[in-house]
Amino acid sequence: MDWKPEIIAAAERIAGHIRRTPVLSLDLSGLAYPVAMKLEQMQHTGSFKARGAFNSLLSAQVPAGGVVAASGGNHGAAVGYAAARLGIPAHIFVPELAGAEKIGLIRRTGADLTVVPGVYADALAAALDYESRTGAMQVHAYDGLATVAGQGTCLAEWEHQGLEADTILIAVGGGGLIGGAMAWLQSRRKVVGVEPETACTLHAALAAGAPVDVEVSSIAANALGAKRIGSICFDLARAQGIAALRVTDNAIAAAQQVLWKEARQLVEPAGATALAALLSGVYTPAPGERVAVLICGANPSKDPLA
Amino acid sequence: MDWKPEIIAAAERIAGHIRRTPVLSLDLSGLAYPVAMKLEQMQHTGSFKARGAFNSLLSAQVPAGGVVAASGGNHGAAVGYAAARLGIPAHIFVPELAGAEKIGLIRRTGADLTVVPGVYADALAAALDYESRTGAMQVHAYDGLATVAGQGTCLAEWEHQGLEADTILIAVGGGGLIGGAMAWLQSRRKVVGVEPETACTLHAALAAGAPVDVEVSSIAANALGAKRIGSICFDLARAQGIAALRVTDNAIAAAQQVLWKEARQLVEPAGATALAALLSGVYTPAPGERVAVLICGANPSKDPLA
Repeated sequence: MDWKPEIIAAAERIAGHIRRTPVLSLDLSGLAYPVAMKLEQMQHTGSFKARGAFNSLLSAQVPAGGVVAASGGNHGAAVGYAAARLGIPAHIFVPELAGAEKIGLIRRTGADLTVVPGVYADALAAALDYESRTGAMQVHAYDGLATVAGQGTCLAEWEHQGLEADTILIAVGGGGLIGGAMAWLQSRRKVVGVEPETACTLHAALAAGAPVDVEVSSIAANALGAKRIGSICFDLARAQGIAALRVTDNAIAAAQQVLWKEARQLVEPAGATALAALLSGVYTPAPGERVAVLICGANPSKDPLA
Repeated sequence: MDWKPEIIAAAERIAGHIRRTPVLSLDLSGLAYPVAMKLEQMQHTGSFKARGAFNSLLSAQVPAGGVVAASGGNHGAAVGYAAARLGIPAHIFVPELAGAEKIGLIRRTGADLTVVPGVYADALAAALDYESRTGAMQVHAYDGLATVAGQGTCLAEWEHQGLEADTILIAVGGGGLIGGAMAWLQSRRKVVGVEPETACTLHAALAAGAPVDVEVSSIAANALGAKRIGSICFDLARAQGIAALRVTDNAIAAAQQVLWKEARQLVEPAGATALAALLSGVYTPAPGERVAVLICGANPSKDPLA
């Protein structure tokens, strides 16, 4: 598949709806090299998901029944937000695991909302059932072409902003964001996936030679909690030969602390997962290798101003 | 005084020590126009103060006894950080009002620390006494030439980053940051000061025709809590004829909420004060007027990850 025109078209489609998020270079204690970062958690609804959501809604003929989505939280908020902006009805299925803050975030978009006992996979089953009953259009959180192309605009934008990096570390849940990155970059730069040890869908799939179900826990599970890597991401990852590294929950929490204490960026665990690979030494750049980290989400489990 | 060469020299002096903080344009609900922002709260120690601190320490012959500073909190953390980086002893006097988080921030820099009962003015008196007893070099929080020139580098940097704005709103405490902005801009763009109603040193001084003491309260008082505007700022403000607008604590708190909810930037009250003038309608741009807000600090009174 030729992704470049898809992502360029997506970028044009969503341009008036999404934010051009800021970039910077940070020196952090414990790292002997600077890290290029893109603060994509400043995107509408607090994560990159708004890109794929707008692209999905704007690139299809949405039926009168509107759209349906299953989400660990961030995708649902993004679809709800995009649907509200575009005047489209939306029904979001979210697992209890998402937590009160993310559920509230979705509710405030005005979308219809069903909270499903269990994890993301349970919400997805309910959303598929809703689709078959109502004819609503399913907006997949990570394994849809329009979703992946939308997320790919994040990397296109970063390059347009002058990204100087040999290697980009990106957190992996279902693989929508890293899939979009691989689709855009086409191995022009090295992409490294980073997953929680206890939610390592891409690592498990690459080891097995095919997407397989994994057990999901982790403090990042309400964002990186897909049970199985998306097939679009998996195919790109295998074709490009990228690595999927694993970090502990402690390393993720430590990276959250560093982002707050040293750069005043408060992110959710998923948003700190890629950086955790650098800070914990799970990924060590070669001498002279320039690294970048995509900060992808900031919907923590409690309201810091409450 | 010819500020331009001072600020250019300051920028060269501090370049290896401070961060080039990111900029972006934000659409916020309730505002019909975009707002250019600079996320200067991402500076080392969470506020712009590191600029003036490094410039002060690098542009003087520091005596063997080191430096002393009084601070509502942010300046002390910046001086402590800069002193530690440069291997200079530092003693910081901070009022109890600064609160545990800011006091902890200073302590972690390794500086000697004395907590003084009362407000900023009480800490300043203690710091002046320490200076006279020990011969340490006083690093004034806002009314020193090197401090103001250092803060002015923030505006120089922003212009270098392509600032597109007719008008820049900046929070005012003692006037170091806005003084630096006026010193750099020299009326090339309109500068608007924004103060808490209950800590309005610049407003009071402009009304009285000279700096005068004001009573200080406000949720932003541990950053904007100077009792009297600095003379450097006052002279620039009078010469340039800038306005000093006043916002309520409620408007400041609401602006903090907007920055978090819509852009995932968690800032302290002072960091949201300039934006509060736009969101509350205290400042309404003319049609076509392009506005910018300098986000200046993010050391809130509680640790959001605790």
